[in-house]
Amino acid sequence: MDSAADRLAAQIRFIIEVDKLKEVFRQTLVTQSRRAENSAEHSWHFALMIITLAEHSDHQPLDVLRILKMVLIHDIVEIDAGDTFAYDTKNMADQHERESRAADRIFGLLPPDQTAEFRALWDEFEAQATPEAKFAAACDRFHPMLLNCLTEGHAWRKHGITQDRVIARNAHIAKGSTELWSYAVSMIDNAVAQGHLPPKPTS
Amino acid sequence: MDSAADRLAAQIRFIIEVDKLKEVFRQTLVTQSRRAENSAEHSWHFALMIITLAEHSDHQPLDVLRILKMVLIHDIVEIDAGDTFAYDTKNMADQHERESRAADRIFGLLPPDQTAEFRALWDEFEAQATPEAKFAAACDRFHPMLLNCLTEGHAWRKHGITQDRVIARNAHIAKGSTELWSYAVSMIDNAVAQGHLPPKPTS
Repeated sequence: MDSAADRLAAQIRFIIEVDKLKEVFRQTLVTQSRRAENSAEHSWHFALMIITLAEHSDHQPLDVLRILKMVLIHDIVEIDAGDTFAYDTKNMADQHERESRAADRIFGLLPPDQTAEFRALWDEFEAQATPEAKFAAACDRFHPMLLNCLTEGHAWRKHGITQDRVIARNAHIAKGSTELWSYAVSMIDNAVAQGHLPPKPTS
Repeated sequence: MDSAADRLAAQIRFIIEVDKLKEVFRQTLVTQSRRAENSAEHSWHFALMIITLAEHSDHQPLDVLRILKMVLIHDIVEIDAGDTFAYDTKNMADQHERESRAADRIFGLLPPDQTAEFRALWDEFEAQATPEAKFAAACDRFHPMLLNCLTEGHAWRKHGITQDRVIARNAHIAKGSTELWSYAVSMIDNAVAQGHLPPKPTS
C-alpha cells in the first residue's frame, strides 16, 4: 500500500464503513423531536464541546487536536459492539473486550500507520490517564447528563436510575474539570427538584 | 462575563442551542437504513474525513486543528438558514446572507472572544482562500458525492442532476486535493456507467 492512490482507496473504504455509526442508537434523546440520539451525532456534539469548553480543563495546556481525534473515533467500535448504556453493569463486564475486537477490525481497514495511530488514540481515550483523555472523558459523561436534563430525565426514568447512581457514575468528571463537575452537580440537583431524577431510595 | 462559571453557563447555552442541528436534514441518504442524513452526522463524518485524508491536501503543511474547528461549526448556521442543496441555484442566491445572520445569532450566544473566534473560522471556511479552507471545501463536496454513489445516485436522480452539473459543481475539489478529485472523477464515471447518474443531455 505504497502509492497515494492505494492509500486513498483504503481510507475511503474506512470512511464508508463508519457511516454505519449513524445507525447506532443511544439511550439519550435529541432535544427537539425527542427521538433517540445516534452515536455519530453524539460524536459531533461531543467534539464541539471540546473546542468550546477546553479552557475549563484542570490540566493545561492541552493538545486539543489529539483530543478531537480521540473524540471523533471513540465510538466507532460501537458499529460492531453496540452502544453500552452507562448504567448497564451486565453488558459493561465484557464491553472492553467486545470493543477491542471491533477496533482491530475497523481501524484495520486503514493503511498500517493509521491503524496504529487510531488504535493508540482509542487506547488513550479508554485509559483516561493523560490530561487529554481525562478532559475528553469528562465531556463524554457530561453530554448525556445534559441531554437527560433537557428531556425530563428520559433515560434515567426509563431505566429507574436514581440520583446516587448518577453521582457515582459521573463523579470522575471532576478529574478532568472541577468547573464542569460543579455545573453538573447543580444540574443534577435541579433535575431531582423538578422530579426528573428520583432521589436515592431510602432502604 | 468574567468568571469561569459565567463563561461556562454561556457556553452551555450554545451547546444546548446547537443540538437543533440534529434535526436539519440534507438531500443525501445514510447508507444503511436509507433515511435522510442530518447536518450533525454529516459534520462528524466530514471531520473524520479530515483527520483520515489530510495527507492528500495539495497544500502542506496544514493546521489540522483549525480545519477541524471550521468543520465542526460550519453547518451550525443551518439551524436558522436551513440546508441549501448544492444544485439549488434559486436558494443559493441569498444563502450567504441568510447564513450570515444565523452566524451572528448563534455564535453570539458565546462569550465575546469565542463569538469572534468562531465567526472568523466560519468566514475563513466560506471564503475558501486558505490552504485549510480549500482542503475543507474539497472534503465537504466529496462527502455527499460519496454517499450519493453508495445510494444509487439518490439525490441526483431525485432532482434530475446530470453528470455535467456534478462535474461543474465539484471541480473545485481539485483546488484542495488533486488526488481526491481524481478519485471523484472515477466515482462519477462509475455512477454514470451504472445508470445512477444520467449523462449530459444532448440538446
